Amino acid sequence: MLRLAVLGCGRIGRMHAANIAGHPRTVLAGVTDVHRPSANEVASAHGVTAFEDADAVFASPDVDAVLIATVTETHADYIEAAVRAGKAVLCEKPIDLSLARVNACAERLKGTNAFIQLGFNRRFDPGHRAAWQAARDGAIGDLHQVIITSRDPGMPPRSYYESAGGLFRDMVIHDFDLARFMLGEEPEEVFAIGGRLIDPALMDELEDFDTSMVVMRTASGKQCHINTSRTAVYGYDQRVELMGTTGMVVSGNRKPHEMHHYAEPHTERAAPYLNFFIERYREAFDAEIGAFVNAVEQGIAPSPGFEDGRKALVLAEAAYKSAAEGRFVRVSEVS
Amino acid sequence: MLRLAVLGCGRIGRMHAANIAGHPRTVLAGVTDVHRPSANEVASAHGVTAFEDADAVFASPDVDAVLIATVTETHADYIEAAVRAGKAVLCEKPIDLSLARVNACAERLKGTNAFIQLGFNRRFDPGHRAAWQAARDGAIGDLHQVIITSRDPGMPPRSYYESAGGLFRDMVIHDFDLARFMLGEEPEEVFAIGGRLIDPALMDELEDFDTSMVVMRTASGKQCHINTSRTAVYGYDQRVELMGTTGMVVSGNRKPHEMHHYAEPHTERAAPYLNFFIERYREAFDAEIGAFVNAVEQGIAPSPGFEDGRKALVLAEAAYKSAAEGRFVRVSEVS
Amino acid sequence: MLRLAVLGCGRIGRMHAANIAGHPRTVLAGVTDVHRPSANEVASAHGVTAFEDADAVFASPDVDAVLIATVTETHADYIEAAVRAGKAVLCEKPIDLSLARVNACAERLKGTNAFIQLGFNRRFDPGHRAAWQAARDGAIGDLHQVIITSRDPGMPPRSYYESAGGLFRDMVIHDFDLARFMLGEEPEEVFAIGGRLIDPALMDELEDFDTSMVVMRTASGKQCHINTSRTAVYGYDQRVELMGTTGMVVSGNRKPHEMHHYAEPHTERAAPYLNFFIERYREAFDAEIGAFVNAVEQGIAPSPGFEDGRKALVLAEAAYKSAAEGRFVRVSEVS
Amino acid sequence: MLRLAVLGCGRIGRMHAANIAGHPRTVLAGVTDVHRPSANEVASAHGVTAFEDADAVFASPDVDAVLIATVTETHADYIEAAVRAGKAVLCEKPIDLSLARVNACAERLKGTNAFIQLGFNRRFDPGHRAAWQAARDGAIGDLHQVIITSRDPGMPPRSYYESAGGLFRDMVIHDFDLARFMLGEEPEEVFAIGGRLIDPALMDELEDFDTSMVVMRTASGKQCHINTSRTAVYGYDQRVELMGTTGMVVSGNRKPHEMHHYAEPHTERAAPYLNFFIERYREAFDAEIGAFVNAVEQGIAPSPGFEDGRKALVLAEAAYKSAAEGRFVRVSEVS
Repeated sequence: MLRLAVLGCGRIGRMHAANIAGHPRTVLAGVTDVHRPSANEVASAHGVTAFEDADAVFASPDVDAVLIATVTETHADYIEAAVRAGKAVLCEKPIDLSLARVNACAERLKGTNAFIQLGFNRRFDPGHRAAWQAARDGAIGDLHQVIITSRDPGMPPRSYYESAGGLFRDMVIHDFDLARFMLGEEPEEVFAIGGRLIDPALMDELEDFDTSMVVMRTASGKQCHINTSRTAVYGYDQRVELMGTTGMVVSGNRKPHEMHHYAEPHTERAAPYLNFFIERYREAFDAEIGAFVNAVEQGIAPSPGFEDGRKALVLAEAAYKSAAEGRFVRVSEVS
Repeated sequence: MLRLAVLGCGRIGRMHAANIAGHPRTVLAGVTDVHRPSANEVASAHGVTAFEDADAVFASPDVDAVLIATVTETHADYIEAAVRAGKAVLCEKPIDLSLARVNACAERLKGTNAFIQLGFNRRFDPGHRAAWQAARDGAIGDLHQVIITSRDPGMPPRSYYESAGGLFRDMVIHDFDLARFMLGEEPEEVFAIGGRLIDPALMDELEDFDTSMVVMRTASGKQCHINTSRTAVYGYDQRVELMGTTGMVVSGNRKPHEMHHYAEPHTERAAPYLNFFIERYREAFDAEIGAFVNAVEQGIAPSPGFEDGRKALVLAEAAYKSAAEGRFVRVSEVS
Repeated sequence: MLRLAVLGCGRIGRMHAANIAGHPRTVLAGVTDVHRPSANEVASAHGVTAFEDADAVFASPDVDAVLIATVTETHADYIEAAVRAGKAVLCEKPIDLSLARVNACAERLKGTNAFIQLGFNRRFDPGHRAAWQAARDGAIGDLHQVIITSRDPGMPPRSYYESAGGLFRDMVIHDFDLARFMLGEEPEEVFAIGGRLIDPALMDELEDFDTSMVVMRTASGKQCHINTSRTAVYGYDQRVELMGTTGMVVSGNRKPHEMHHYAEPHTERAAPYLNFFIERYREAFDAEIGAFVNAVEQGIAPSPGFEDGRKALVLAEAAYKSAAEGRFVRVSEVS
Repeated sequence: MLRLAVLGCGRIGRMHAANIAGHPRTVLAGVTDVHRPSANEVASAHGVTAFEDADAVFASPDVDAVLIATVTETHADYIEAAVRAGKAVLCEKPIDLSLARVNACAERLKGTNAFIQLGFNRRFDPGHRAAWQAARDGAIGDLHQVIITSRDPGMPPRSYYESAGGLFRDMVIHDFDLARFMLGEEPEEVFAIGGRLIDPALMDELEDFDTSMVVMRTASGKQCHINTSRTAVYGYDQRVELMGTTGMVVSGNRKPHEMHHYAEPHTERAAPYLNFFIERYREAFDAEIGAFVNAVEQGIAPSPGFEDGRKALVLAEAAYKSAAEGRFVRVSEVS
């Protein structure tokens, strides 16, 4: 049983704490949060320790590993501290909004025994994973095109935007990682457009986008498209399509149930899609924990790892550059 | 090119006339109808002869075969006359509403060179046919259960009811034929209930049913269920399910297109099903003509044939008896 | 927090223990099993008490309610003992295989403060529930037909058959309950056929059936069909269809994910259905616990309750009688 | 009844001839082809005149309109000749592979009474049309994104490539038109990549692409993605997705029937998609004729018209320029 402590008791930290508590191969070794009442609440719900702060967690001999679910600007510091303390790390994305900070972190981790898994949960979704596995098993021949649809069910609150880092770094970063995972090779060129279609006034003010389309190409010529929107009123829209020489696999959306309604003006009407990531990726978050335990116990490299987190951020930077300059940007220009 | 004349220029006769005119292996050799203006109209639309009456058709040396689409009570007489005239026959179901009349007709046809195909179009539907073929090809192992859903989109006019012969003889007879086709062996026992749920007053007056459920069993123990309704507001509901030891095949409904709508309260909302038989079974009616030409040209027995028409009617009679007596009725009791 | 103890640590008892432990509104108050090592194993996995025996559970002041998941022949005794001890009861189906024993139990419970919920989990499945709710909300008008498809993924071991009570009492009893729930009124007549198609030799020896079809009718004329099989090789097949005057709702099957494969000979190929009830009805088992807590806390009658368990068994008895006599059996003949 | 003659008796010309012959509002007024035996064969199949050549058609008083289905390099000349002869024109796409030639043709048509409909059949597909209509009717709010998937079932023969004009001018041109139709406003910028993934040697030799991705943006910021491939082994893959503020509509693929297979390793396995355009767009080709007749009879502007053909070609030119230069190309740069 791996003893995992959770740093950060916000929405996603709470979810992880519950998952760890319920997982057959992990023990929730405690939680912490800069907002003490939150930590106390989560700790008492699970009957575990509310650590004073992150340092107390790192110092504890009863903690084997930490799951970092704090605000983004603390991730890199906590990663470094955890590694110094000899704790395995499962860190929510992104490592940092600044590529320079991420690169500095990478530099400092060199030569250490750092064990870092990144929280790109979508790789563990049963449907996405089955698509990836089928492609690996030859079910579609040579992969030619990857198409990812990624739409959040609704606009986040303004406060979220102010610290999230922008559409490509915050939201599409998941899809950049998924694209790399599915492509099986690195995108070399990125084209992107960002739109201000849902809330133009807010987007203008924040200099952010709410809608985007991306095209990427790898060295061998594989093509990838990502389309994103902050507002899919019909639910969280998460699709992956892999097209190859001998077939196609598609990982589609999930509904809360399979009840369909038929009446005078329609057939097959179903419920909205699962909303939001906690519901949609329930199995994925759980499998992510399982993969982390596996890697720790077997002493194998965690996957996705730190470098995957860095590379997804590089693609986000390339996307911003492309959106600004209206051209195919080589990834090597920004990395 | 087979020269086919059409007897009867009502809704289904007109459809057959157009199909025959457009079919690459048939020539529309003329039409007739007791209501002369109807015959004239259809004839002129296709630039063919409007025969004076059925006798004129039978007498014509320019007619190889006849498609009988007149009112039910004329079917048996026309079959007999056509056979006497040496014409091949494609006759709309049912042969007659009276089993005694059908048996008498069968008696008279004995020893003749009668070539009679019955218009059980559903056997030729691409989906139902593919299900049947898959089962024959071993895709489901040994067949155990057949489930047929058969619901008309809406109540026919009262005038229709008065001559149609009742739910089991008129509507479910298609499903009795389909059940025999799919089962690959004869039902030996029939249980049926009939309900008066949609228009109880009318059904009471006509002593008819608008809703029914049937269970049948073959000698080897295969089970079959048919459920029917006169009113499916979401369109013509026509499904066949074959369940076996190693798999299942399902032939589902058809929509006019695959446009689906997604919005705040729903996903996957589609158009109503094709409504009605002329649209839903378009390919089936066409394939029926093709099978008829094939059989005539190759001198093989038409299928479904006269005896299939008779046996479906026997099952309808058994269903009535069962609905009246509340018990499993042996088919041998009524045939 | 309701303190719930679990009697019986077999497959389903373990599942319930884990659900209760993870449920936000319940505490697992301990477990017991006649096979002590099983109880100890489950108790230690959850860090709770392994009670000596059921009597110890009933005597404990730290137990508010019991979930009975022991072998069937103990259910009625435990229900009676739990009620005497003032514990609320959530009992797995069936109450007993003998209707006489169930009726005797009902007699003894008269005048007591018995609080008994029956484990008909399917009523709580999100899809089935949404269908029921839609029908109640008027989405299909007047209900005319209920069609239930219920097929287990594979034959249970012989040892299971020997004590399970036969197809109608053991397996179809779930569907009888679901039928009552969906119909919203009592079936008055039952017709059933049972087949020995999957393993005829074993079924002959055990005088049991492996395949069945049922038709039922209520006083107002509503029709219900249930078809069952012990072997659906494509996964646990659990469908409910409600047909009414202004629409239809269908609760369909669930897959582990929505990955579909397209290749030269096919499109839309998906994974097998969730197999088996623990996976398929995961949310239902959880919601069942929630409904139980609700009823206890609010002091309302549990639903489904003891009488629902009794009535489902009556329908099973009627089905056996019908299968033996080949006729529509009135429920009043057996109850 | 509009008297329509067909120029060109190749695959698509034959299809049009049959459609015109069977259409209730048109008469096939004759056919012609530079290869006389082809013309004779089609003419005799329909019992119509085989004209000596196109001039004879234009000269005939018995011809109201012509459908041009000859090789591409003749289209512009025939359009001009037909307009001079006062015939209405329904012309297969493209008008010409050379934008200069198209512009010259446009110049010559100025001031004439030219009535020209372009054969962009996909606008008339029931599913695509229903998506377009739903968007127009407000079912998705403001349109933000259009995603078009367009994959041919297999590589055409080499001879086809040599005269077809290349992937963007020949195949994607349909999607450029569909994008304009769906967007409801003009794309202003085009980004495109072309790949040589299916048959790299042939594509290198022909300097053509077999796989592509396109992104376009309109003045108001609407985004459009098109992905194409010459080889979808699972059938002709034709999808359109419209995403807006209050919903999404998707027009999906069509199968020959709805038979699905369920077995040990899979569920829901369906037949390959309809292959190829004659089957998939059967209803569309028919509706195209109907729209043409409507426009002629009502004296309204045909849609899609000549300018739609020109604009789709402009987008193809922009795509080539973008693929060569790796940047967002403004449509005004090429038109």
